[in-house]
Amino acid sequence: MQKVFDLHFYPGTCSITFQLNYNMSVKEESQILQYAPFMSTVEPGFWHNLSQLKLDVDRLNENERKIWGYYSSSVPPGSSMALFVDFSAFNKNFTVDATSLPANGILLNKNTLESFKECDKLNLLESYGTELVNQMKNGDAVEKPSLLCKFILLTFADLKKYQFYYWFAFLAPKFADTALLKPPQKIGTVFGREQIDTFEELYSAISDTSERAFLTVTLTEEGNISILPLKEFGDALRQKNQRTFLAFSDPSILDENPGWPLRNLLALIKYKWYCISVKRLFLLKRYCHSLIVKRPEVVGSALEVIGIRRKFDGVWNADRSVIFSVMLGKDDTPLDKVNWVGWEKNQRGKFGPRMTHLGSTMDPLRLAETSVDLNLKLMKWRLLPELDLNVVKDSHVLLLGAGTLGCCVARLLMAWGVRNITFVDNGRVSYSNPVRQMLFTFKDCQNGGRLKAEAAADALKEIFPGVASKGVKLSIPMPGHPVGEGSKKEVEEAVDQLKELIKNHDLIFQLTDTRESRWLPTLIAAHYGKLTINAALGFDTFLVMRHGITVVDESSQSDDVEAVIDYSSKFIKGSQLGCYFCNDVVAPGNSTRDRTLDQQCTVTRPGISLLASSLAVELAVSLLQHPMRGLAPACCSSKNASVGKEENGGDGDCERVLEKELQSHLGLVPHSIRGFLSQFELVVPATHRFSCCVACSHKVLNEFKIRGFEFLCQVFNKPGYLEDLTGLTKLHQESASLEVRK
Amino acid sequence: MQKVFDLHFYPGTCSITFQLNYNMSVKEESQILQYAPFMSTVEPGFWHNLSQLKLDVDRLNENERKIWGYYSSSVPPGSSMALFVDFSAFNKNFTVDATSLPANGILLNKNTLESFKECDKLNLLESYGTELVNQMKNGDAVEKPSLLCKFILLTFADLKKYQFYYWFAFLAPKFADTALLKPPQKIGTVFGREQIDTFEELYSAISDTSERAFLTVTLTEEGNISILPLKEFGDALRQKNQRTFLAFSDPSILDENPGWPLRNLLALIKYKWYCISVKRLFLLKRYCHSLIVKRPEVVGSALEVIGIRRKFDGVWNADRSVIFSVMLGKDDTPLDKVNWVGWEKNQRGKFGPRMTHLGSTMDPLRLAETSVDLNLKLMKWRLLPELDLNVVKDSHVLLLGAGTLGCCVARLLMAWGVRNITFVDNGRVSYSNPVRQMLFTFKDCQNGGRLKAEAAADALKEIFPGVASKGVKLSIPMPGHPVGEGSKKEVEEAVDQLKELIKNHDLIFQLTDTRESRWLPTLIAAHYGKLTINAALGFDTFLVMRHGITVVDESSQSDDVEAVIDYSSKFIKGSQLGCYFCNDVVAPGNSTRDRTLDQQCTVTRPGISLLASSLAVELAVSLLQHPMRGLAPACCSSKNASVGKEENGGDGDCERVLEKELQSHLGLVPHSIRGFLSQFELVVPATHRFSCCVACSHKVLNEFKIRGFEFLCQVFNKPGYLEDLTGLTKLHQESASLEVRK
Repeated sequence: MQKVFDLHFYPGTCSITFQLNYNMSVKEESQILQYAPFMSTVEPGFWHNLSQLKLDVDRLNENERKIWGYYSSSVPPGSSMALFVDFSAFNKNFTVDATSLPANGILLNKNTLESFKECDKLNLLESYGTELVNQMKNGDAVEKPSLLCKFILLTFADLKKYQFYYWFAFLAPKFADTALLKPPQKIGTVFGREQIDTFEELYSAISDTSERAFLTVTLTEEGNISILPLKEFGDALRQKNQRTFLAFSDPSILDENPGWPLRNLLALIKYKWYCISVKRLFLLKRYCHSLIVKRPEVVGSALEVIGIRRKFDGVWNADRSVIFSVMLGKDDTPLDKVNWVGWEKNQRGKFGPRMTHLGSTMDPLRLAETSVDLNLKLMKWRLLPELDLNVVKDSHVLLLGAGTLGCCVARLLMAWGVRNITFVDNGRVSYSNPVRQMLFTFKDCQNGGRLKAEAAADALKEIFPGVASKGVKLSIPMPGHPVGEGSKKEVEEAVDQLKELIKNHDLIFQLTDTRESRWLPTLIAAHYGKLTINAALGFDTFLVMRHGITVVDESSQSDDVEAVIDYSSKFIKGSQLGCYFCNDVVAPGNSTRDRTLDQQCTVTRPGISLLASSLAVELAVSLLQHPMRGLAPACCSSKNASVGKEENGGDGDCERVLEKELQSHLGLVPHSIRGFLSQFELVVPATHRFSCCVACSHKVLNEFKIRGFEFLCQVFNKPGYLEDLTGLTKLHQESASLEVRK
Repeated sequence: MQKVFDLHFYPGTCSITFQLNYNMSVKEESQILQYAPFMSTVEPGFWHNLSQLKLDVDRLNENERKIWGYYSSSVPPGSSMALFVDFSAFNKNFTVDATSLPANGILLNKNTLESFKECDKLNLLESYGTELVNQMKNGDAVEKPSLLCKFILLTFADLKKYQFYYWFAFLAPKFADTALLKPPQKIGTVFGREQIDTFEELYSAISDTSERAFLTVTLTEEGNISILPLKEFGDALRQKNQRTFLAFSDPSILDENPGWPLRNLLALIKYKWYCISVKRLFLLKRYCHSLIVKRPEVVGSALEVIGIRRKFDGVWNADRSVIFSVMLGKDDTPLDKVNWVGWEKNQRGKFGPRMTHLGSTMDPLRLAETSVDLNLKLMKWRLLPELDLNVVKDSHVLLLGAGTLGCCVARLLMAWGVRNITFVDNGRVSYSNPVRQMLFTFKDCQNGGRLKAEAAADALKEIFPGVASKGVKLSIPMPGHPVGEGSKKEVEEAVDQLKELIKNHDLIFQLTDTRESRWLPTLIAAHYGKLTINAALGFDTFLVMRHGITVVDESSQSDDVEAVIDYSSKFIKGSQLGCYFCNDVVAPGNSTRDRTLDQQCTVTRPGISLLASSLAVELAVSLLQHPMRGLAPACCSSKNASVGKEENGGDGDCERVLEKELQSHLGLVPHSIRGFLSQFELVVPATHRFSCCVACSHKVLNEFKIRGFEFLCQVFNKPGYLEDLTGLTKLHQESASLEVRK
């Protein structure tokens, strides 16, 4: 198609070339055209997406975002003339349905309420108005007239309270008033029934709905109706023997007033037609013919504008459409200098922002979901942009023990965004638990007490319904607790269940209260190469550690202590770090026998379990942030570990050399953390794997791999078996024989 | 009264002196007397008191305790013959009511289930049997015959689960069977109506109910009935023309069988009468006269025993009493060598212990109360006998802020046994809170959110109904938040309320999330000399500190920095330690203005708040365990604080010298604890009070004391006022002028 309106704006020329003097008497003779304003309507979905973008993408970035709004030309009488902004506003490929028209928005989301309040509103209008002017001048707005409907959305999102402050501006230039030459006419007074139906048919047939916003309509002498793109308005005008109309999809419901979009359409018509180059002057005569009427300088007729208003009576029809006969006002202001208006009045009828509190209208579950992530995502805004929250969130975590440690660890994991938490415990909640075990209440203790694992899983859901928590009642089989023939099947099932659980989780926390209950989980976790965090409490001391990750193809060599220690360096590879049992030279046995009450109960200073839990979770999360995960190396002696010793020099070197490898995004990833509350002191020693370890050494893992439950039964039933197997017995004998010789 | 039975046992003589040969045919001719055994009945009150004693007094001590039981001679037919042990069992001045008889118990409460099971039951019988023998021999049992009813109660109290394992032994010697010479007769067949009534009257009139257990009864030929103490049995026997009966209050409900107490009475009769000195031999003849019948060696009649059994028919009567005609069996075993029996059968009719689970029968509230104290009291058993739990329990604690820190601190305080906790907060629970603020759940967020202070106080009660928690909605007035005339009254009320709250609590925790909100509480707490703990969070760092205690009479001089620093020592007195503001050189202002979301929210690693809360509570409790409380000195540089510095020597000295003063029972009481999670490091620096401190300096306290709210208003409204007042402005100017000269 030939580009008829190949009109370009030459800066600085328009005001010189054309100084058309309008006859002001027009204004006096006729009514001034007034436009029905938009009413902004923001759907909650928009705020959700805005929140997500702010949290995850924009963060502290205040740059503008292009958004989309939409309005309808089929607003039922009595409704308001809404401009909608909803969940789809940020879509790159925004489309509107057949009843709607798109609007181009600029989102300016401020970081603080203060900057929201204090930002220069007039300046915003001007700068985005200028953008629109440029689009009119360079022809974009003619080619793609939907650009004419443009709005600014200034916001401040208080994501903590789910309060959103916002203010819309529907951009429009302030130029000389347009005259309404006669009262608006219903389309039926100009078009016949058949013509209206044809009109509706043609209108509906425009496949790109965004082109429906602004159109050219012609009516031949024969009564034939055509709908053409806006850009063919000039061509149409040149055709004789036909009546040419401007047309726009009109959201207004008022008989006397067209909707706001006409304002910018008329601006385009007015400025575009006057701001042409001298070369194109010949065209002007023709255009002026139709554009400017009743003016001495320009011969022409009134501009007829169809406000297309539709309704649905079984089928769509355009019967409610209105024809406005207007004449543009005289204006000497050059396009660049025009003032812009458009800030919306708020609910109280004043120019000012609106506020919506989403908390009350939102689905509470979804609200909780997003709120819980808020504090986490804010970490990435400024402090730790490289933090990988998803690796934490997506971890499936198994907590062995739902007591003091288990409850606290679970809460902290949830705070870190973990959504899959499984508790394993075989106990019931007793009356002494709730004050120390922070997932239980008095209610859980009554009638014999609820199962801890279940009560803890339920409590997590009460705190945050979005969590997928499970409770498994399971007694962990233990060395020193013999398995008779009668209970063999039951114990084997428990072993299988534990294996399955460990296999299906990514991160294992060992939080039980005896040494022997940690043996089987340590073994199975090593078998599957799972990341394991261990926490154990004393009265005012604690140990938190990560187990070395067993690398299968290395395991055959790695058990030789001599071979694995890299004496030349001061760190230990993740695969060479010890487990909970690596420092022990006796296998675990039944430690619950013959214990007095104070030995049975974990008698600790209450703060100890929280300290240990916090550090266990933070160590785990730090590891997840380390590129090597469980294989991250640990420094043999930290600054703290060397406290009190005279050696200071070496550590510094070690840290400098290995700084990168030893740190995750969150900092150090020590092998173990030992706390001494009486001195308010932490130390972070690292120790090697032990080739005779009763839980993670190659010999033990191998027996387990080959003989499975049969091997376990031997361990459960036969004291000394593990020591014999691992070589501990031999070690003891050798050291004993050495003693004798002394 | 003449001591008739002034009989003494001369060791080794009895078996030599008397070798009476009984005719065994007696046994064959008549029935063997069989005794109705006791059924032990333990009231929950006993277990409660036992638990308390174990926890608070005995702890690891397994020594025997004397206890009391009681039984009744008015057991309705169909009931069991119970020996009761209840809450009064441990009373020093044990008394029984008019219908009951006392029993002497020995409580042996074992520390472990294993020692309970494994302790030598026969040995116990023997050793306590020997004790009874000695009481028979030395006359105590004659003087105070209630000693004859003796039991052992062997227990293991699992105070964690409220399970009590126990086993009663009702001590009785195993000697030759006693013959029942004829079927037992109802008292009515021997005594007339009037005689029975007189008997009841006399019995009831015995004022010391414990004397009613074992008695002498005489019936003269004239039909006169007398009741005499047991010790007068011999005298009575010597009286001619009267029939003399042994009598005992009989708990048995069986017509044919006397109750268990008769067994030991007969033992006394049997052995006492034979174990006499040669000097007293003449008496023997008389006694044998009545005691041993139908035996060739001894001339005499059958021993008649009244089993006194009462019932209440409007008035008490003894109609159910039974008379047993018995003859003691022959027995050559000396008193010392007799075997003892008495272990009770359990519910399944086997010799074995019983178990009671008190949890299910106890008042849950009381159960919770005692359970909560359990873990705390166990600390005193072995680890820290000197720990003063009451000073912690009795503390009234005020928590300013019911957010992440406040919730966690409250839980820990409750775990330490604190019962009076008041929250101050003006916020509402939002959806992001529950995963980090451990007293809130999803429910609390709905419908706009509950008030945090109230929700937290309620949550504490749900955890432990015994807590006296309160929530106060209060906005703490802050510098930089001006007070207009309109809000003056409201702010003044808030100040008054805060003053009142701080005044009425012993321990103040500052757990709010802005610097300026800590100013007024710091000032007021200093004004009242209250112990104040402050906790503040960074992203992965935190500060926990105690404020120096303002000693009023020192305050006028102490503000001169020069004067207070004791350069010769390396510690700071509690009165000279700084507050939260002492390190600052600017007054707090409005820090909430113009903050982006990540600055508004406390963006922290979740573990940080738990670490800070734990250390805040543990520091507070450590202080309470220090004899000087808040005035406890703090070491200027701890081991940790000196890490990385080259100075090592001095600290050691300091610690040695001041070890005692610097440590509470729980360890160090540092001035502040700073944590760096990225390095898993704690340091504990101490700093001096600052004479220009905007919150605790003499000038500020003095203005507050004199001018009160007027002064505060000036602070709230006038930026720079505090700096001017304290001399900070001058300090700034001086340092600025110095800079210029450079």
